Amino acid sequence: MKKLEDSIVGFIGLGLMGGALAMGLRKQEPGKILAYDINPRVVEKALSQGVINEGVTDSQGLQKMLARCDLIFICLSPMDALAFMALYMEDFKPGAIITDITGVKGVIVNNLGNLLRKDIDFIPGHPMAGSEKEGYGKADDSIFKNRNYILTPLPSNQPENIDFIRKIVRALGFNHIIETTYEIHDEKIAFTSQLCHVIAAALVDCEDDLSITDFEGGSFGDITRIAMINAPMWTELFMCNRKNLLHQIEKFEASLDSMKTMIQGEEKTELIDRLTSVREKRIKMGEIREAKTKKNK
Amino acid sequence: MKKLEDSIVGFIGLGLMGGALAMGLRKQEPGKILAYDINPRVVEKALSQGVINEGVTDSQGLQKMLARCDLIFICLSPMDALAFMALYMEDFKPGAIITDITGVKGVIVNNLGNLLRKDIDFIPGHPMAGSEKEGYGKADDSIFKNRNYILTPLPSNQPENIDFIRKIVRALGFNHIIETTYEIHDEKIAFTSQLCHVIAAALVDCEDDLSITDFEGGSFGDITRIAMINAPMWTELFMCNRKNLLHQIEKFEASLDSMKTMIQGEEKTELIDRLTSVREKRIKMGEIREAKTKKNK
Repeated sequence: MKKLEDSIVGFIGLGLMGGALAMGLRKQEPGKILAYDINPRVVEKALSQGVINEGVTDSQGLQKMLARCDLIFICLSPMDALAFMALYMEDFKPGAIITDITGVKGVIVNNLGNLLRKDIDFIPGHPMAGSEKEGYGKADDSIFKNRNYILTPLPSNQPENIDFIRKIVRALGFNHIIETTYEIHDEKIAFTSQLCHVIAAALVDCEDDLSITDFEGGSFGDITRIAMINAPMWTELFMCNRKNLLHQIEKFEASLDSMKTMIQGEEKTELIDRLTSVREKRIKMGEIREAKTKKNK
Repeated sequence: MKKLEDSIVGFIGLGLMGGALAMGLRKQEPGKILAYDINPRVVEKALSQGVINEGVTDSQGLQKMLARCDLIFICLSPMDALAFMALYMEDFKPGAIITDITGVKGVIVNNLGNLLRKDIDFIPGHPMAGSEKEGYGKADDSIFKNRNYILTPLPSNQPENIDFIRKIVRALGFNHIIETTYEIHDEKIAFTSQLCHVIAAALVDCEDDLSITDFEGGSFGDITRIAMINAPMWTELFMCNRKNLLHQIEKFEASLDSMKTMIQGEEKTELIDRLTSVREKRIKMGEIREAKTKKNK
């Protein structure tokens, strides 16, 4: 297995996520951290903070940087990540490990096709953490604590390289690493993440009273925090996972509609039964999660 | 204005809310705190903790207690609160102030009608705080900190009695007291509270995978915390505010449907525009709330 202390780690994009990952990696004392970001001020800041050892902002510098990196975190949105790999595939160091952090995995894997060099080990990943804030200035690796990290390894991935990534991810603070297929990832994530964002956005969208929080007791704020959405990025995520997301929206609409019918028809007993089973299900979901958190501590 | 140090305060129901309110009241050093709860163990616990001075569990004791109370907090669900007032109206002390904490106000005010004694000042209220937990054992008055408290005074209420309640509410930790009509309360609350609970319940209802939290990054947990719902109580709240709630569900469904159509039709530009305006609206809602919080500190 590669050793992190001998490895040069490269970050492509130092936004909220790339920045936070680089900050967390720094604590693991890798050989060096190099970074590419189009914003010179971000690169300067990361350099001055000692988060990265070297930074580049142009494609010439990037090519030289890629030739030196043993491990690369591509911290871009899905289409940018794909374009990046297509453009710079020839520049990666022989035998390099590449991973990404995009919120949809099928679109990456399916479009990568024959593009991927045989000597490059690309291990798709998805850190299940984030913030409604944006950019390197808001980056903070404490958001990773006790979170899920999903890996969707390819059949060609070398087990020792997956282990290498797992070790890094665990040290970043994630306490539950799930390995699954990109198909299952995209189906589940359409529910837990994209549908939740659509719901939050629709809830804010349908209300015109800007002082509505006068009447809130916490629920509305909790649900709609994620409506402070990065619009272009989330539109891309929605589009890249369109079919799964539409299926999940329809699944949710059916449940909502059946509850509406019960309220409309004043079907009290049925509604109490439904809400009781919902309560039990949610408690069970929480317990399963809790048990896994404890086990991995 | 009545003075709290000379007043005997009565609590009807020592559940999660009644218990927490009594705990908070205790710190304000009223003359005495009396309480009625059908559960003897709850009364014993509240006595042993020094939260209440005296407690009763039967209707004879209750009648005697009511005759002594200058201020009464009815901490029951809407229909129980109504039934309680109907049953014990003759037992209240002359000139007593009564307030309640039910999550819907129209059903109380409209059904009270001629029932209310002329010498009794009933000031309907709604503390916008709570928990997915239940019962006196989980009661904790820290949940009131920086929350909203809504009062829906009746035309007959005496201003000095409203001020008396406001002073107590402020000292409980609530930092924003809204006075409005019961009609506006019920309309707004159908959105901020009941609709949010229906959404959370539908979201849990439509998912069969109990290990779904393997794939969550916070959003799903935040949204569905309130799905751990007290089923009979929330069914009652939904039924008591049926028309407003149905209107709010339909409003939300329309927004959700229009976003679904954009995703279906791959209308990227439209979706980015919509999500951008949602983001701006939610940020503005947060700022307005923040400004009020600061002003009231």
